[in-house]
Amino acid sequence: MKRIVVLGSTGSIGTQTLDVVAHHPEEFVIDGLAAGGNTDLLLEQVRRFRPRRVSVAGPEQADKLAPHLPAGTELFYGNEGLVELAAGGDAELVVTAVMGSVGLRPTLAALEAGRDIGLANKETLVTAGHLVTELARARGAAILPVDSEHSAIFQCLNGEPREDLAGITLTASGGSFRHLNREQLKDVTVEDALRHPNWSMGAKITIDSATMVNKGLEVIEAHWLFGLPYEQISVLLHPESIIHSFVEFQDTSIIAQLGNPDMRVPIQYALTYPRRLASPGERLSLAKVGQLHFREMDYERYPALRLAIECGKAGGLLTTAFNAANEAAVARFLRGEISFLRIEEILEEVIQRQANITLPGLEAIEECDRAARKLAAEL
Amino acid sequence: MKRIVVLGSTGSIGTQTLDVVAHHPEEFVIDGLAAGGNTDLLLEQVRRFRPRRVSVAGPEQADKLAPHLPAGTELFYGNEGLVELAAGGDAELVVTAVMGSVGLRPTLAALEAGRDIGLANKETLVTAGHLVTELARARGAAILPVDSEHSAIFQCLNGEPREDLAGITLTASGGSFRHLNREQLKDVTVEDALRHPNWSMGAKITIDSATMVNKGLEVIEAHWLFGLPYEQISVLLHPESIIHSFVEFQDTSIIAQLGNPDMRVPIQYALTYPRRLASPGERLSLAKVGQLHFREMDYERYPALRLAIECGKAGGLLTTAFNAANEAAVARFLRGEISFLRIEEILEEVIQRQANITLPGLEAIEECDRAARKLAAEL
Repeated sequence: MKRIVVLGSTGSIGTQTLDVVAHHPEEFVIDGLAAGGNTDLLLEQVRRFRPRRVSVAGPEQADKLAPHLPAGTELFYGNEGLVELAAGGDAELVVTAVMGSVGLRPTLAALEAGRDIGLANKETLVTAGHLVTELARARGAAILPVDSEHSAIFQCLNGEPREDLAGITLTASGGSFRHLNREQLKDVTVEDALRHPNWSMGAKITIDSATMVNKGLEVIEAHWLFGLPYEQISVLLHPESIIHSFVEFQDTSIIAQLGNPDMRVPIQYALTYPRRLASPGERLSLAKVGQLHFREMDYERYPALRLAIECGKAGGLLTTAFNAANEAAVARFLRGEISFLRIEEILEEVIQRQANITLPGLEAIEECDRAARKLAAEL
Repeated sequence: MKRIVVLGSTGSIGTQTLDVVAHHPEEFVIDGLAAGGNTDLLLEQVRRFRPRRVSVAGPEQADKLAPHLPAGTELFYGNEGLVELAAGGDAELVVTAVMGSVGLRPTLAALEAGRDIGLANKETLVTAGHLVTELARARGAAILPVDSEHSAIFQCLNGEPREDLAGITLTASGGSFRHLNREQLKDVTVEDALRHPNWSMGAKITIDSATMVNKGLEVIEAHWLFGLPYEQISVLLHPESIIHSFVEFQDTSIIAQLGNPDMRVPIQYALTYPRRLASPGERLSLAKVGQLHFREMDYERYPALRLAIECGKAGGLLTTAFNAANEAAVARFLRGEISFLRIEEILEEVIQRQANITLPGLEAIEECDRAARKLAAEL
């Protein structure tokens, strides 16, 4: 039985991870669960999966949870709690499904301890790709992608000679506003934005899909995960989200991974790799789908994607600043403080003001993250 | 450099094989070329690729060719010539691109000699799948598919755990008459039939695409190549022929191989496996294609496919009889002797009259082939 820690267990990826685990009680044991403020759901999960270790956002949530925990359950909180769950104990795989750059330190701690990572927290690679991938290599730990696009690429590369790879293509649905032009985007609301057509996801990532920032972060994530130059990473509009991504070899042959949009499939693959177990998901019928559509990416329509790729190419602190500024700007949009299009403007302004250095260390990265977040909150 | 023999070098697959070889002079050497009656083209090929050994249909063609051959070139003819080219010499790979059941004996001879096979002659597996796959296993020889559908499946299985495979799906364009209903098929001509929408192929296989007999032979071929029960092999209508086929695993994940319809890509893969070299083919742009369509297979519209699968499930001599009867019936249609729909009727009648035995030997197979061919020519 594989021992698993889930960081961010009450979020969208976290709950779906536990759904997969519940479908294979003979395969997996939950060693630890970390959540933020949703202690009610966490308690439910604790009662069902009986982890030895639990962590919450802060002392307040810990006090609330403590009286209800089964005897012997260790309780932690805060960033130290995340690190303890990631690196303590004896789990084989840590699923990093927390939101935002808070995932970085626990991920590094888990890798340092030689744990494999089920990576759902793409910000980890976006803000500190060089530190994370170097550490994984040094410790012989695997980074298994959970994002559907990266899982697709990872699957398509199985058994193939990497030296014959010509490039990879991430597909993008276009998000909830894909039928609107830029003029029409001026008046869209939070409620409009949260209706994602294909995937069941959290609020922040749904907004990131609408701005195409999410695809930008995915391009940067793919750069680090697969060790590819940006010139070999493309993005293609594919509204149905049935082809999850594909790779092209130098013989012009394309290998693609397809399925219904169901995050439990890539999550499970990260848990069972290289095996594939029966999935709770619904089988894809291409005859029932009938048609698949594809369009060239439109970088005028989605300027934040262009900016993300430029930041990726520049490297250093720019992707950290981009990600942090986006987190702050999206939070402001979700609170109704700014308009949808203002998100992109804030990103442009933060990046324009950002001084860059190459190969920054962890402190420089965290300082840049704080500063960009602060600036984006004030602009 | 890999030493290659091409049986059927002047046909569609043969010439495209030599096109691939010509693109990679540093990788391949042509050891032998066998053709039928097109001695002019064969001579051109001999002058370009300088094989040590050549074979033609009969003594007449040999006499015509002999005076023009470079000194030292060995000349053979007939079925013995095919066997000599397949099993003599020191080639590593024999591409079996001859048409029809004449490919069986040389394929068995090549396998007996431990040669890998680039299998384009699907009739070999259709008529004697149990003998061919058993011999390949015993001699440790690989059977590398050249058909685009089987090459696609073969590629999609790379690096995957076979025990987790749920099934495979062969795509079918629907052939040159896919827009016609059965009533409209009554009056179609040979010329109409030979206009295949996607693939550049020989006349016989183009007719087989229109009747869907070709897909039936491919299902039987896939059964033997991949060791799968017929219940795990599906056919899906996909008019664009962009997704060449796909596999589905028990986690509902689908891995597909895509590309422009260009036989040189699967041919080259059989030659270079497991590597992938640069290809002379054009890269696929899904954005340019724009849309892909899929429909359930319609077994009422294509009764010959249903019959082929029934023969496959019954096993024994039925697939031999089906294939032989089809060759004779298609020849008659191409000569203008019978109507298009009469091909299917002849197949039904021959199969109805065929007595079956299990695990037939080579003599029983060849006798059945002759009898079914004769019957189909007279019905």
